[in-house]
Amino acid sequence: MKAVGIVVEYNPFHNGHAYHLTQAKKVAKADIVIAVMSGTFLQRGEPAMVDKWTRTKMALAGGVDIVIELPYVYSTAPATDFAKGAISLLTAVGCDSFAFGSEDGSIQPFLNTFELIDNNRTEYDALIKDSLKTGASYPKSLYYAYEQLTQKFPAPYIDLAQPNNILGFHYLEAARTLNSNIQPLTIPRIAAGYHDALKEDASIASATGIRKALATTSSLQSVQKVVPEASFDYLADWHRHYKKFASWEAFWPLLQFTIMRHTTSELTRYAEVTEGIENAIMKAAKSSSSFNSFMEKIKSKRYTWTRLQRMITHIYTGFTKEQLHSFEAPSFIRLLGMSETGQAYIGKRKKDIELPLISRVAAAKDAMLAIDIHAAELYNLSIEQGVTALSLPKDYQTPPIRY
Amino acid sequence: MKAVGIVVEYNPFHNGHAYHLTQAKKVAKADIVIAVMSGTFLQRGEPAMVDKWTRTKMALAGGVDIVIELPYVYSTAPATDFAKGAISLLTAVGCDSFAFGSEDGSIQPFLNTFELIDNNRTEYDALIKDSLKTGASYPKSLYYAYEQLTQKFPAPYIDLAQPNNILGFHYLEAARTLNSNIQPLTIPRIAAGYHDALKEDASIASATGIRKALATTSSLQSVQKVVPEASFDYLADWHRHYKKFASWEAFWPLLQFTIMRHTTSELTRYAEVTEGIENAIMKAAKSSSSFNSFMEKIKSKRYTWTRLQRMITHIYTGFTKEQLHSFEAPSFIRLLGMSETGQAYIGKRKKDIELPLISRVAAAKDAMLAIDIHAAELYNLSIEQGVTALSLPKDYQTPPIRY
Repeated sequence: MKAVGIVVEYNPFHNGHAYHLTQAKKVAKADIVIAVMSGTFLQRGEPAMVDKWTRTKMALAGGVDIVIELPYVYSTAPATDFAKGAISLLTAVGCDSFAFGSEDGSIQPFLNTFELIDNNRTEYDALIKDSLKTGASYPKSLYYAYEQLTQKFPAPYIDLAQPNNILGFHYLEAARTLNSNIQPLTIPRIAAGYHDALKEDASIASATGIRKALATTSSLQSVQKVVPEASFDYLADWHRHYKKFASWEAFWPLLQFTIMRHTTSELTRYAEVTEGIENAIMKAAKSSSSFNSFMEKIKSKRYTWTRLQRMITHIYTGFTKEQLHSFEAPSFIRLLGMSETGQAYIGKRKKDIELPLISRVAAAKDAMLAIDIHAAELYNLSIEQGVTALSLPKDYQTPPIRY
Repeated sequence: MKAVGIVVEYNPFHNGHAYHLTQAKKVAKADIVIAVMSGTFLQRGEPAMVDKWTRTKMALAGGVDIVIELPYVYSTAPATDFAKGAISLLTAVGCDSFAFGSEDGSIQPFLNTFELIDNNRTEYDALIKDSLKTGASYPKSLYYAYEQLTQKFPAPYIDLAQPNNILGFHYLEAARTLNSNIQPLTIPRIAAGYHDALKEDASIASATGIRKALATTSSLQSVQKVVPEASFDYLADWHRHYKKFASWEAFWPLLQFTIMRHTTSELTRYAEVTEGIENAIMKAAKSSSSFNSFMEKIKSKRYTWTRLQRMITHIYTGFTKEQLHSFEAPSFIRLLGMSETGQAYIGKRKKDIELPLISRVAAAKDAMLAIDIHAAELYNLSIEQGVTALSLPKDYQTPPIRY
């Protein structure tokens, strides 16, 4: 049985994701698709709009055979570590290849890019340094250095202004760093840009566009055309039950209280909160009545919005620098859901899988797993704040979903 | 101008308080009454039902001439430190005497009690130790030792089973420890016991009884007979505006999130949280949907309800053991409100007052004052959670109320 891996957030699962996984299976000539999926908090530093169990159901209904969780430590990390966590899990679970969407659609330009940087490492690093000195953010500086190099040595390279190309670049980099034999594949993205808004008459839209549509229009119907029927039903069920989707805006009262409960200097205990920004965060928290106005007050040239949101995520969940630095690599494979084929695959390959497979969390003795459960508890509490009996599935009591 | 001091919480100000302060003035032959009043969080380890500004207005309307704030560090402390903070402030502000209500009503039995303990210190301490070994709480053990001594050396002593006698005992003890020349006076309490429920046809009820009546009946009218008209109007105004009175039950969603945001062992950072109890607190927080059910789960023979609530208060406000141990004595006198006579007194005595008088908090550079402002911010946020623009007065922008 041949398995292709994909790295996903499914926030929410839409037609573009369905297309991607069908293509991945085809291009990889694979029998099954394994998705490593972020749990409750995502790479952009925000809560997933619906919980991991609901997104697992969407994934299984959409054709994924095995869903494993990308631990919080990686799912909320900058691209380099996010990719490292994901690729090492896909390697550990036995994937022969992994496939990612890119604007380019072919793998050669990615390889050219690596060669270019490898051959000009000193100049590349110096260019990054120069740009950082001007006060530009790290991603911007990387891009600047890369642009300079590509102009000097022309060849078909990837366009690193495209979010999906950046992620792809980091996946390949992770596979190289990890010495993984996993084969990289890329699939051309279609129709919708990463951040594009919903278009009329289109059946493909970006997840960002879908979330925006759901945040601003009161009607779920606006996204019906761009998500599979099963996804739509799960979203509708969720909304009927909880009256809202998870977002920082919805969590703002709890977030504001959490920030203000600290002394300003204590905020620097948390992962990614660099010295200096804590004053702006505290001042903005005290004077803002919505998450958006809070963010508008702390944003700067120096930090990307995503980076700031990741700081906020760690303050919210209490994830400290000390915790972050205590981890080196994923220590388990958490199964969130399986199709029948997925179950057969696990049954056959069990012995070859290097990391412990975790189906049901009886006691979270693993420190990395304890963080996932902690994050899920806070997520659930934030959704059902003030509700007498939480109805969301308790993380440690939920077995993998079988489909 | 002769000033008598009183130690109050006014949660809320009721007819018994009005009686007490008239008597205090009379017995002390004083021209003015100075009240040192707890701010936002109280000695029983709970938020005040209405904020300190509203309670200051009630006090001024009730006949108090000067209201000064008992800082958080003392207002949420065990009786010994609570009394020390209060008596040292009344001494610093120039009171000739202080008056407290007691079941007994005369000061001699208090003095006898001190003599008894002084003369039998070794035996007293040994008896306390014996009782603590059986797992009894500290207050219970004190009482046990005291009971043993009084049976051995009969004389008119105070009954230390009565909450007001206990407080009085600690006030006198504080005055002795501080070498204060302030003269202790006591006034017999009338009509309602400390924890008594509301009685029909009575004009005096305990604050506990009043809070319970307001928590369980939807109508404010039930307390109209037992509080002065001004108090009633302030309570009614508050309730019209905020729809609720502050209580742990009302703050429960925020408290639950705050506890669960921590790792279990981190909870021991906070003041009064003794090693061992953190597991029970975390477990109960995860499984409770109300403050009361949470408390029922953590209560034990070892800790009084009040002590547990104080732990919870410190977890809620983020007040650590380290902070607690950094303070030795009140470092300022915060004026919350003054009558015209009170203003005249301050004008005349200003030069003799040892501590800085603080009327308006421009910048809280004093660490003890910063904690009061922090506590008030969290209190306000808890009351108006989710409200777009907080209407509660910001602590550092509010000048003393002039009446």
